[in-house]
Amino acid sequence: MSLIVVGSIAFDSVETPAGRADDVLGGSATYFAYAASFFGPVRLVGVVGQDFPPSYRQLLEKRNIDMSGLESVPGRTFRWSGVYEADMNTRTTRSVDLNVFADFDPKLPPAFRDSQFVFLANGSPAVQMKVLDQVTRPRLVVADTMNFYIDNAHAELLQLMKRIDGMVLNDEEAYMLTKASGLVDAGRRVLTMGPKFVVLKKGEHGAMLITPTEIVALPAFPTDRVVDPTGAGDSFAGGMMGYLATQPNFDGPTLRRALAYGTVTASFNVEDFSLNRFEEITRADIDARFKQYQAMLAI
Amino acid sequence: MSLIVVGSIAFDSVETPAGRADDVLGGSATYFAYAASFFGPVRLVGVVGQDFPPSYRQLLEKRNIDMSGLESVPGRTFRWSGVYEADMNTRTTRSVDLNVFADFDPKLPPAFRDSQFVFLANGSPAVQMKVLDQVTRPRLVVADTMNFYIDNAHAELLQLMKRIDGMVLNDEEAYMLTKASGLVDAGRRVLTMGPKFVVLKKGEHGAMLITPTEIVALPAFPTDRVVDPTGAGDSFAGGMMGYLATQPNFDGPTLRRALAYGTVTASFNVEDFSLNRFEEITRADIDARFKQYQAMLAI
Repeated sequence: MSLIVVGSIAFDSVETPAGRADDVLGGSATYFAYAASFFGPVRLVGVVGQDFPPSYRQLLEKRNIDMSGLESVPGRTFRWSGVYEADMNTRTTRSVDLNVFADFDPKLPPAFRDSQFVFLANGSPAVQMKVLDQVTRPRLVVADTMNFYIDNAHAELLQLMKRIDGMVLNDEEAYMLTKASGLVDAGRRVLTMGPKFVVLKKGEHGAMLITPTEIVALPAFPTDRVVDPTGAGDSFAGGMMGYLATQPNFDGPTLRRALAYGTVTASFNVEDFSLNRFEEITRADIDARFKQYQAMLAI
Repeated sequence: MSLIVVGSIAFDSVETPAGRADDVLGGSATYFAYAASFFGPVRLVGVVGQDFPPSYRQLLEKRNIDMSGLESVPGRTFRWSGVYEADMNTRTTRSVDLNVFADFDPKLPPAFRDSQFVFLANGSPAVQMKVLDQVTRPRLVVADTMNFYIDNAHAELLQLMKRIDGMVLNDEEAYMLTKASGLVDAGRRVLTMGPKFVVLKKGEHGAMLITPTEIVALPAFPTDRVVDPTGAGDSFAGGMMGYLATQPNFDGPTLRRALAYGTVTASFNVEDFSLNRFEEITRADIDARFKQYQAMLAI
């Protein structure tokens, strides 16, 4: 199975009630790829500046992430800085410096064009569509988006939505996009816009899957060690797609289980800054926590 | 099993994106009692004014709710008015007229003093303790509270907390009470203040149970017919306590299942104004939805 992610690679500076970290490895593609790598090989396409250290590239390569789609160009890598409030669920962006990511024009290495599972991490819908133009025959395409593009690239986003199988977005974004009243309503409206399934991410409150025949709500795994929620959404998507890439079909029970794997994978990510917690664990830790999660939900 | 609830009975005027209702039957004890009555008999203690129609009393009596603790005094019944925003999860109170509830001094009929299961619905901690002084040997005491008492009756609330087995409160209240960072942390801090278990209600996001040995998060049942969330928290507590009152013990799995029954019971309540939806259903409907909920969570 060949899973590809296209998205941002960044240096993050984060302050949370639990501490702070400066200029640590982050970005949507980074978190997604690392999370998905627990389930199988991943191909990454992104862009970094000349300040990106070889050690970060190696960190990902060690994890079965094919970095041959990583473009290095003159300039500085994308930088993001933010602060989380006491409840860890509200964050304020302090600064965004797109740097080399501003002109990101993803070019898939020829060997990546046969990718069967495609995750278009948060980015401009026009750029996301450029990726789709380069994959020959994907089996499952899932895209993320954010408020900025809902407001400023609305027409392109609607075009993109007709070309994807699944969409992942957070609850406020779903309300913005659909003007719905209630999350189930929001999900149903997204389905009328193209995707066959939608996953609504609710941060510490878990996630919801909506398909034409199923409505599934799952709680977040209640870890008591929340250090930094940055990258939780992308780690969730990575766990979900990583699991799906090992499956023969994407029926209701499979999608539901993928949602659960995404949830459990993301719960590790929030336990430390950057990829620190992921670096400490193996697939066996994910499976052990998955069993705990199953037991908690066996009512 | 003898389950008693002491709390408010009110006329509510509610406006939601789905419509409006004026001067309809509401109040914490009302919602709790009706929800619990699906599981067994309930005793209600509360106060109403002379404007309270006999038909409302009969509506509850018909449901196996013993209304002999309902005091009727000169004056008007408690009135509350509020409006819900588009996402149905944020509400603004327009007016509160405590009326006869301002001087509520609960007196338990002698036949109620042997109640084994006690739910102290939202009210002043001093009044809640007066109820405890009147029950002889309860097996399980659970109390709800709210922001007003956390701020204005803090010392009494801390006293009350030492005398109860379980506490039910919503997430913002838990943060207010504990100054915690994260819900698990908040729950753990509540446990240090007295209760043996705490249930954190998160509205459309479900609920969390925290005991010294268990952390359980469950999602809300995702109904796509959200008309009026008023009373959801009390209906949740009613379903939970109603189920517990049928159980021989309150171990981890029993509490978890009680949380699930509370969740499912509350999901009906939000599907219409006042008690309208509850009046249409039977215990069989709750059990059928419970099975759906189990299936959704079987990952």
